[in-house]
Amino acid sequence: MEQNKKTMPEIAKRANLSIATVSRYFNNPELVAKKSKDKIQKVIEELNYSKNRYAKVLSTGTTDLIGVIIPNMAYDFYDNVLQEILSYADACHLQCIVFSSNSDAEKEKKYIQELASYQVKGIINLSNTLDSSLLQTLHPNVVGIERECTHIKGVYSDNYRGGQLQASLLHRNNCEKFFYCTTHFNNVRTASKRLEAFQSYCEENSLDYEILAYHFTKEYELDTKILLEIFNTVTASSNKKCGIAFSNDNHGVMFLNILFRHQLNIPEQCEIIGFDDSTISRQAVISLSTIKQDKRELAIKAIDLLLQPNETNKHCMIDVQLLERESTS
Amino acid sequence: MEQNKKTMPEIAKRANLSIATVSRYFNNPELVAKKSKDKIQKVIEELNYSKNRYAKVLSTGTTDLIGVIIPNMAYDFYDNVLQEILSYADACHLQCIVFSSNSDAEKEKKYIQELASYQVKGIINLSNTLDSSLLQTLHPNVVGIERECTHIKGVYSDNYRGGQLQASLLHRNNCEKFFYCTTHFNNVRTASKRLEAFQSYCEENSLDYEILAYHFTKEYELDTKILLEIFNTVTASSNKKCGIAFSNDNHGVMFLNILFRHQLNIPEQCEIIGFDDSTISRQAVISLSTIKQDKRELAIKAIDLLLQPNETNKHCMIDVQLLERESTS
Repeated sequence: MEQNKKTMPEIAKRANLSIATVSRYFNNPELVAKKSKDKIQKVIEELNYSKNRYAKVLSTGTTDLIGVIIPNMAYDFYDNVLQEILSYADACHLQCIVFSSNSDAEKEKKYIQELASYQVKGIINLSNTLDSSLLQTLHPNVVGIERECTHIKGVYSDNYRGGQLQASLLHRNNCEKFFYCTTHFNNVRTASKRLEAFQSYCEENSLDYEILAYHFTKEYELDTKILLEIFNTVTASSNKKCGIAFSNDNHGVMFLNILFRHQLNIPEQCEIIGFDDSTISRQAVISLSTIKQDKRELAIKAIDLLLQPNETNKHCMIDVQLLERESTS
Repeated sequence: MEQNKKTMPEIAKRANLSIATVSRYFNNPELVAKKSKDKIQKVIEELNYSKNRYAKVLSTGTTDLIGVIIPNMAYDFYDNVLQEILSYADACHLQCIVFSSNSDAEKEKKYIQELASYQVKGIINLSNTLDSSLLQTLHPNVVGIERECTHIKGVYSDNYRGGQLQASLLHRNNCEKFFYCTTHFNNVRTASKRLEAFQSYCEENSLDYEILAYHFTKEYELDTKILLEIFNTVTASSNKKCGIAFSNDNHGVMFLNILFRHQLNIPEQCEIIGFDDSTISRQAVISLSTIKQDKRELAIKAIDLLLQPNETNKHCMIDVQLLERESTS
């Protein structure tokens, strides 16, 4: 990388000026004489120094970098949103430093410090590990996507509406017994709105429902075992037509595979609806009905919020959309 | 970001020294008197200036950044490798600026320029769009993964061995008619080794085989149509037991879905094997036999090559492994 080591002393030497003058050129150009300015400009052009962002950073204090933290890449949802963030960031002439944290709190704190040291414009955080009250102390410009955002900027889908749409579709399609399958969570999560809405809908319509909250692991084999347990619960419960809503598409598709292998008729005996509209929902053996989260819009609004001047608690909710596919009638 | 604008003049002011002295401290510390050094050190600590990487960059010409270019996130393989790169980079105290290029040559050139302006230690490129002869002129330290690497450093799977393993498994399992389904490609690609090996194996063993090379689009609906065509070709051809090898798992799983929907018995009537061992191969309705590319090892070796001093044509080949699952007998 020797050829990139174009420091102020090198410019000073080539321009036959003092380092102080060169430093002043970057930091207080109004104090530099026209003649010296021209000399420095010429050397910079020769050295292609204008392509070196760091001099610009030192003189202006700003970069074109943003940070992105995702909790994992096991769920397609995060891959899909990351893709959209990279795409829109590029359109905005921003570059992304990306971290995948495995939901590890200590790592996330370290990543935020590292991002701060790169003087990123801001950080988009998709992980729900650190409380927003802590996040706001770690960096002045954090935008959450689909996570708890009480003390930071945030973009999220209309999860409550999503949960309602899931329940009302299964109800409309004459299911008799209703299940909601979700990850067991201890902290505030946007996904809890989905469950809340599903539950309210069932209560209001006096439906026979059950909540299945499990500790999913993101390990395919282990999670398949959990879903087999759920399959046994669901099929043992009665001969009624079941409607099962999942809080993400990955679990919905895994469950669909189990039903197929046990030769249940879908959607005649059992209807399934996922959440996210992630890639896998279209790639399943039969396409999975789902609630579309608009990943592009989430990414665009997150970057827009990041770029706009800080205001406290600036939040944005994105519409969701019911996609009826083969796993429901 | 005003609080991050901690430039050399600010240090000079606080330390009551000239800017030239401060600049010398960063660039030629041996020329700075002990007393001045101590003063500057103290101010730097006060300002937490050591956390500002840019001064370090300007003085040393090196960063802890690496660039990563992936062609798309439509195939799980790229997501999976990216995950491993992020994970190993973190272990090496490196940070990644990530671009997804959509295989667009102009974009990739622009990304490489941007990465150079950030003085990244090197660039890991998973896209096969730009010739390595061009890449070597654009940046002195590019490492390719699973792409043409004649003029740059490169890491790839033993694709020839992979193609052999695909063919010999189908042969061993008593398939009578053999197909190899791949993306039609115009440029040199590592994946062409897979086809070459499959073909050689069939020739050597006088097997009845056919190559199916199509222009896949990465659009799920369009590619499903292509695969339906292939399904018709395969089933129309004879009553013989078919063995079909795919050059990636995504197409293998899509084809598996088509077979399932047409109620063919797998693996009795038809055996399927993919390539990659990407996430989707385990998530299919029945698990897909495949050739495991060791994504972790690809990522580790790529970063190791990137960090080691430049030598021309430094290449590394990673073993592949046959994974027999439910789609073969």
